[in-house]
Amino acid sequence: MKTRRTQNLVTVALACMVVFMTTAAHAADPLSSWNEGTAKQSIVEFVNKVTKEGSPDFVPPEERIATFDNDGTLWCEQPLYFQLLFALDRVKALAPQHPEWKTKEPFASLLKGDLKGALAGGERGMLEIIVVTHAGMTTADFERIVKEWIATAKHPKFKRPYTECVYQPMIELLAYLLANGFKTFIVSGGGIEFMRPWTGKVYGIPPEQVVGSSIKTKYEWQDGKPVLMRLPEMNFIDDKTGKPVGINSHIGRRPIAAFGNSDGDQQMLEWTQTGSGARLMMLVHHDDAAREFAYGAESKIGTFSDALMAEAKKNAWTVISMKDDWRVIFPFESK
Amino acid sequence: MKTRRTQNLVTVALACMVVFMTTAAHAADPLSSWNEGTAKQSIVEFVNKVTKEGSPDFVPPEERIATFDNDGTLWCEQPLYFQLLFALDRVKALAPQHPEWKTKEPFASLLKGDLKGALAGGERGMLEIIVVTHAGMTTADFERIVKEWIATAKHPKFKRPYTECVYQPMIELLAYLLANGFKTFIVSGGGIEFMRPWTGKVYGIPPEQVVGSSIKTKYEWQDGKPVLMRLPEMNFIDDKTGKPVGINSHIGRRPIAAFGNSDGDQQMLEWTQTGSGARLMMLVHHDDAAREFAYGAESKIGTFSDALMAEAKKNAWTVISMKDDWRVIFPFESK
Repeated sequence: MKTRRTQNLVTVALACMVVFMTTAAHAADPLSSWNEGTAKQSIVEFVNKVTKEGSPDFVPPEERIATFDNDGTLWCEQPLYFQLLFALDRVKALAPQHPEWKTKEPFASLLKGDLKGALAGGERGMLEIIVVTHAGMTTADFERIVKEWIATAKHPKFKRPYTECVYQPMIELLAYLLANGFKTFIVSGGGIEFMRPWTGKVYGIPPEQVVGSSIKTKYEWQDGKPVLMRLPEMNFIDDKTGKPVGINSHIGRRPIAAFGNSDGDQQMLEWTQTGSGARLMMLVHHDDAAREFAYGAESKIGTFSDALMAEAKKNAWTVISMKDDWRVIFPFESK
Repeated sequence: MKTRRTQNLVTVALACMVVFMTTAAHAADPLSSWNEGTAKQSIVEFVNKVTKEGSPDFVPPEERIATFDNDGTLWCEQPLYFQLLFALDRVKALAPQHPEWKTKEPFASLLKGDLKGALAGGERGMLEIIVVTHAGMTTADFERIVKEWIATAKHPKFKRPYTECVYQPMIELLAYLLANGFKTFIVSGGGIEFMRPWTGKVYGIPPEQVVGSSIKTKYEWQDGKPVLMRLPEMNFIDDKTGKPVGINSHIGRRPIAAFGNSDGDQQMLEWTQTGSGARLMMLVHHDDAAREFAYGAESKIGTFSDALMAEAKKNAWTVISMKDDWRVIFPFESK
């Protein structure tokens, strides 16, 4: 009897702890890395109205689709898109097997550390780099290579793994939306198979909720096993007008909230806004040279043109100032 | 006080009812339309072992991906794929606006009711029918047309809406997998946008979990609003070797269970089987002329070749006999 009474007491104590912890978690601000202001307020107000049953703006959970650009929106994209830095690292790693690269552009410049020279060939040169680093292997091999790189490579400025160069306020936003019944998707110009190996761990977004650019794959048998071979041929470019196309293809519903940071996201925000009912459209503006990078209209990476700023004003899209709206930028700052 | 006591009694009574109903539902067989036998047993054993924590075959919920072919696996595909019957109905509906079709094949034969003549042109003729019935409109217009058709059209033999010509045992299987933490996907040769408007209601599968064939779409502005125009150009054929490609593109994980019924599903089952860990591969065999249709190797629709049967034997895939394994075939039988 005594034992049972003790067990009961333990149970009650545990239950009280759970209640206490839940209350404490509830009381804490889920968006604590955001400063008070229009940006934070517009998120909270939007989430409150679409989740309040009986409200004219109520949206059933299955339709609470939120889409996020990745480069420059969820993680950093400077000094170059991280996928490009991955490709450059791969060229260096593969160089011993390709002596001809010593005299062949864009590889020759690249191996000499002359990035500008390597990229002088424009899109054609870029495509050559992509082909040798992203194609001619199975999807399983590519996944392994990405996982190895992402686990070991470090950002040139922050000296941290790339997966730590993510924006803490956006990580909180993803979790906040998830806790409010949203389904969160990445809709990025980046490679779909470059992102999927790590988005679950880093953003809580599973592979089936990642939309991105892709190359063609082919099903074939190798050594008694079926594989998907990655071919040196573009399949889909998930950028600009491609974003609504990618959303329609992969999700089949229109988002009610969309988050981007550059000209490549304009059409995703337009597509989101022109559905019926309450909508939230936001653009991250990189205006914090001290803590991250400051760039915009003039930048080749993550261009935020004056035309996009004008669209944002005209359509009442919320522009997030990293400098003013974010108390913390990277998770490692607060540690 | 009396009122409060009455309320309390009502609350207790309701709580008891809920407990009773839950227990009753738990006791009921979730696969009651399946006869006892190898097919049913292999499903239950597979689900038990992958969901049992601590078991060597345990699979975490996020990796419990099950893929289902649609035509001939979840719903009937005779006397013709239902999407083809939809296209034929559309040709008839559009004919008044196209007087030239009276003398132009494949439309002339089709409008005279000569289906064989209409299909004599082979793939080129079929493609012409698809182009006029599936392209040249926005995705929103196509969705509306599909919804109207699916709500009103009836199956020529069963005289029921097409969405009632679904297989009751497979509806139960979908629900059973869902209740056991699986995420269920359709992976069909049929049009992705032809299925999405109704798969949620009929199968409990949301649009983002539907993979299918597609035509290209283009983002553009019309009358001050952005639209996605459906172009007369194939984008992707989700059949045979296309199925593993479609699975990789949309899901980004390998299924642990796959269900099909024809040669078009062989590669999906191969791809599923050759992942590591416990796997379940099943093929529906249409051998019940009395209750549905009997067809196989000789059929153009839903071909189940001798080579596929040999593969099934060699790889220990379970062949479901509709005649022997299914107590009920259609939901309307039991009503």
